[in-house]
Amino acid sequence: MNYDANNIFAKILRGEIPACKVYEDQHTLALMDVTPQSDGHVLVIPKVAASNLFEIAADALGRLIVTTQLISRAAKTAFNADGITLMQFNGAAAGQTVFHLHFHVIPRYQGKELRVHAREMADIKILTAQAEKLKQALSNSI
Amino acid sequence: MNYDANNIFAKILRGEIPACKVYEDQHTLALMDVTPQSDGHVLVIPKVAASNLFEIAADALGRLIVTTQLISRAAKTAFNADGITLMQFNGAAAGQTVFHLHFHVIPRYQGKELRVHAREMADIKILTAQAEKLKQALSNSI
Repeated sequence: MNYDANNIFAKILRGEIPACKVYEDQHTLALMDVTPQSDGHVLVIPKVAASNLFEIAADALGRLIVTTQLISRAAKTAFNADGITLMQFNGAAAGQTVFHLHFHVIPRYQGKELRVHAREMADIKILTAQAEKLKQALSNSI
Repeated sequence: MNYDANNIFAKILRGEIPACKVYEDQHTLALMDVTPQSDGHVLVIPKVAASNLFEIAADALGRLIVTTQLISRAAKTAFNADGITLMQFNGAAAGQTVFHLHFHVIPRYQGKELRVHAREMADIKILTAQAEKLKQALSNSI
């Protein structure tokens, strides 16, 4: 697979389009999913160019999953979630819609089914408030 | 959450019950899921006691995701899959049924929906044949 440098996450990483960021370090970025499958759905992406799981080096992948763990802990606290589901899609047949590697961190709530992936846009005000909650939980945990 | 040393993966790691193993190293083990959501569904687990993503140290988590990447590559090749979906559940509300941290590596095939999680037992002969295919793909790739 060839990496498309004009995918939406590449543009966000270059600062060309805005995103509702919740965490950033030298190697990774976490942002609110704009079509959340549940309240507090976050995406965690590496800063290296990798279309999917197959294209990333082991050290960069290790950093990505550690940030994913950090965000998962914070999301569980921030949103008082009953659980966290991680999902990561490789290839259109697997449900991948943006071809820059990303982990979905999806808070789960007892008795609530997930909404359909990449269908309905969330209200930016709600996402911003959720991002603030997450940042607060992160600042308490780091 | 308290780690239950009598969960099924802990028993497999201690050799007390059999499993259809496909890969093992000092820190991780990969085995066929006995209730596969698609053909070639593999589970990757750490050898440390961790109920979920929240309970594992960063270095052990890094090793776990690198083995998961290795298995994903091999599964894509072995089963000629169109994509790979990773899933990882934390807490009963997230769909977790065995309380030892595990990543699901689920081969995806164009136009085929996933079967329901943890419902139907697979034929052990079919699982064994799939494990052999995977081991072959792994021995070609390592």
